[in-house]
Amino acid sequence: MTNTAILNKLVIIGVGLIGGSFALALRKAGLFEHIVGIGRSQQNMQCAVDRGVINEIATDITSALHNADLVFLAMPVGQTAHIMAQIAPHLQANTIITDAGSTKQDVIAAARHHLPIQNRHHFVPGHPIAGTEQSGAQAAQADLYRNKHVILTPLPETSIDAVERISQLWQACGAQVSLMPADEHDQVLAATSHLPHILAFTMMNHLHHSTSNPENLLRFAGSGFRDFTRIASSSPEMWRDICLANREALLEQIDAYQNELKLLQEMLKNNEGAALEQAFSEARSVRENWLKSKD
Amino acid sequence: MTNTAILNKLVIIGVGLIGGSFALALRKAGLFEHIVGIGRSQQNMQCAVDRGVINEIATDITSALHNADLVFLAMPVGQTAHIMAQIAPHLQANTIITDAGSTKQDVIAAARHHLPIQNRHHFVPGHPIAGTEQSGAQAAQADLYRNKHVILTPLPETSIDAVERISQLWQACGAQVSLMPADEHDQVLAATSHLPHILAFTMMNHLHHSTSNPENLLRFAGSGFRDFTRIASSSPEMWRDICLANREALLEQIDAYQNELKLLQEMLKNNEGAALEQAFSEARSVRENWLKSKD
Repeated sequence: MTNTAILNKLVIIGVGLIGGSFALALRKAGLFEHIVGIGRSQQNMQCAVDRGVINEIATDITSALHNADLVFLAMPVGQTAHIMAQIAPHLQANTIITDAGSTKQDVIAAARHHLPIQNRHHFVPGHPIAGTEQSGAQAAQADLYRNKHVILTPLPETSIDAVERISQLWQACGAQVSLMPADEHDQVLAATSHLPHILAFTMMNHLHHSTSNPENLLRFAGSGFRDFTRIASSSPEMWRDICLANREALLEQIDAYQNELKLLQEMLKNNEGAALEQAFSEARSVRENWLKSKD
Repeated sequence: MTNTAILNKLVIIGVGLIGGSFALALRKAGLFEHIVGIGRSQQNMQCAVDRGVINEIATDITSALHNADLVFLAMPVGQTAHIMAQIAPHLQANTIITDAGSTKQDVIAAARHHLPIQNRHHFVPGHPIAGTEQSGAQAAQADLYRNKHVILTPLPETSIDAVERISQLWQACGAQVSLMPADEHDQVLAATSHLPHILAFTMMNHLHHSTSNPENLLRFAGSGFRDFTRIASSSPEMWRDICLANREALLEQIDAYQNELKLLQEMLKNNEGAALEQAFSEARSVRENWLKSKD
């Protein structure tokens, strides 16, 4: 655990699974006196208050940001530029700003466009690799980030103090923090997160379109199918934004995946049993080595 | 629970996860006096004895099949024809035979070729929709089939009594039994099981081939990736056999999936945010409706 000083005021913009869980973890750690939430849905914000995720629903941005120690941006990543433009005039020079967007180059571009240089000194782009297919304040949980990775992609102008402070807060949530250039982050996540989401969504659409009676097909789908498609229950709005924000890297991944799929398709067309078994063995080895490396 | 009479002798050919779990469940239900195992790996067979999965390792097929009430074929599906040819001369006329192969038309073709008509009267092709990515007798568990589906695809010449008896045994394992034509079974499973396995194996191979350092990519892979690729840890030999056995239906599925993926790829290429969100929403709805239907 860290020796982070207790701070006065945290402002969470977008009190869903990600923002709400950050708030709950930091409350549990006793690191903030007061947590203010800003959000679009009154019902969701009320749920956040009722569950003790936040102390207060903001009535206006000016007073919400007044004397804020930290602003945490946790709305869908596609709204980042819009929200930055809205908050920029009201940010104090010493307020630290961080975010939880699943893509980082677009967030940094938005910050360069909308945040004045004195605020960018205190802006720490971040991405917690955590979540479930659930969404909303209702789904927030204090231990969501325990033993999870958080990647920070600071700007050249971000102060070391701000990075250190954000690192401490994530560590107080139980997470392991890594630093990485934003373009590398976006490449890595395109491969290991954005592509699998596209493939899982595609699986459900394929079943939907390939038969007039998907219920009949799905009646006998088992636990393998359930786990394979779990991420297809994720928020459509959030994933629209992520895909558009990381479009080029994701398109490259889809292309390369299709080529890999064609290899297996050809083996199957040609009844190449040994080659199929070899390909499946390699796939299993890569996965088993990964699982071992996590232990 | 059923009022199945206690039977004398069960012979399991292939005492892995599937065969071993069937044995454990029926032992727990007290439905067999004696369970004999036949298998290739002495180490695995010894494990089956040590764990109490079987009473005895068969020394030869003739004595193993002597007075058997039931023979359960649970080796990889590609060995079905070979094993049927081996056991056919030693089968008694009243022994019931069933299997657990993930494909059914090829199993039925093998039975037509290798089993005499008097044995086919007592042959009940079956497929329990259950399993984990683990394999071997070590992984067997008595409750593997609890609340799972089992599909039986009887031949026209299969006796109703044999079907009824096998249904009772699966129900005693806690499973829900359905009857279906074999070709329909193979279509349904190609879509909901065989295709997802191919896609998960492909995901791991893609990561393996797209970078010189897959460990670095995978270091930040989260729980979504873990669940999406769980089935890529499945047995390569078993999945080689399944893919080859259900080759045509699976190739059709891969083609249709690729077309569906191209639709999303085009939307992304053209920055069609609304269309992407709509596609993701439909995918999520299909999955949520499925989950609700299972409750």
